Amino acid sequence: MDILDLILRRRSIRVFEERPVADEAIVTLLKAASAAPTAANCLPWEFIVVNAPERLASLREELIFARYPAPLAIVVCGNLKLAFKGPEQELWVQDCSAAMENLLLAATGLDLGAVWIGVYPNAGKIRSVRRLLDIPEHVVPLGLAYVGHPGERKEARTRYDEKRVYWQAYDPDRKHRAKHAPTKGHY
Amino acid sequence: MDILDLILRRRSIRVFEERPVADEAIVTLLKAASAAPTAANCLPWEFIVVNAPERLASLREELIFARYPAPLAIVVCGNLKLAFKGPEQELWVQDCSAAMENLLLAATGLDLGAVWIGVYPNAGKIRSVRRLLDIPEHVVPLGLAYVGHPGERKEARTRYDEKRVYWQAYDPDRKHRAKHAPTKGHY
Repeated sequence: MDILDLILRRRSIRVFEERPVADEAIVTLLKAASAAPTAANCLPWEFIVVNAPERLASLREELIFARYPAPLAIVVCGNLKLAFKGPEQELWVQDCSAAMENLLLAATGLDLGAVWIGVYPNAGKIRSVRRLLDIPEHVVPLGLAYVGHPGERKEARTRYDEKRVYWQAYDPDRKHRAKHAPTKGHY
Repeated sequence: MDILDLILRRRSIRVFEERPVADEAIVTLLKAASAAPTAANCLPWEFIVVNAPERLASLREELIFARYPAPLAIVVCGNLKLAFKGPEQELWVQDCSAAMENLLLAATGLDLGAVWIGVYPNAGKIRSVRRLLDIPEHVVPLGLAYVGHPGERKEARTRYDEKRVYWQAYDPDRKHRAKHAPTKGHY
């Protein structure tokens, strides 16, 4: 099994076929998400599966920033009552992000396409998603994955850049002149 | 390729053999990390690879909360000058968490063991890691992965729990009585 190949094949897919995602595949995605590591084994996540057409239509209407016509949305939430207590409570964001990434990779492994739509920490987006899906105040939607059979294909890729890698210690003198600068350079 | 199997085999490994991790494997881990999705394609991450024995020893001395004797540590950082601008700047946390999860999964695929040590948002831990690795103020260490050839084996598992899954909308009346409650119940 070449895991690197699979990780590189995970791309953001925003075009989907109309046919639905099977319930069995949905459960596989949730099992993958629920295998992520969490700080102090808190398991702060909850998932909302949305695949009823009218509910999806409302979600798209609400999410003016992300109206992709997928047959399935899975919202990954952090439940603050389940999260780590104290000043490190925000570790739920990291836990739920790892769960989301697992979900996206599992989708790739199932030959599904998916895209991560960010919600948290945008207050307006959080409010919209909360209102539409009856989410209470102590539960925060981190983001959602739109999932479906892919209607577009993208090449595998990594954005590995040796300019972003330091050995033994940081080099504060290294400059990043551009986001996508070529990896060639004097170091 | 059964991606779910691989995702379930990723467990937190805290016991390691002494032999080092090959440079080629380190680059594979970094390529996996650098294939994660990022908000608005920001690529806010930087990585510090620590495998010099004396530097690792200092790191362990500093990190009183995580002194695992691994031959390699990879610190995943968010560079705020590269991150999304404005009130959603903190999306770097999600991007870097996805990168970290990719790195951990790639380690599993390479038959390495790894464990995610959280640093951010704990101010004291951030200060310690910054001091030791010469990290400037605009770069935030999210956490680090200790990596090595595993000295312990753990069973594959998921913490999937249907009580954490809602269909179409949240159910505010559902109670989570315990973190690890059995999945059997009245819903």
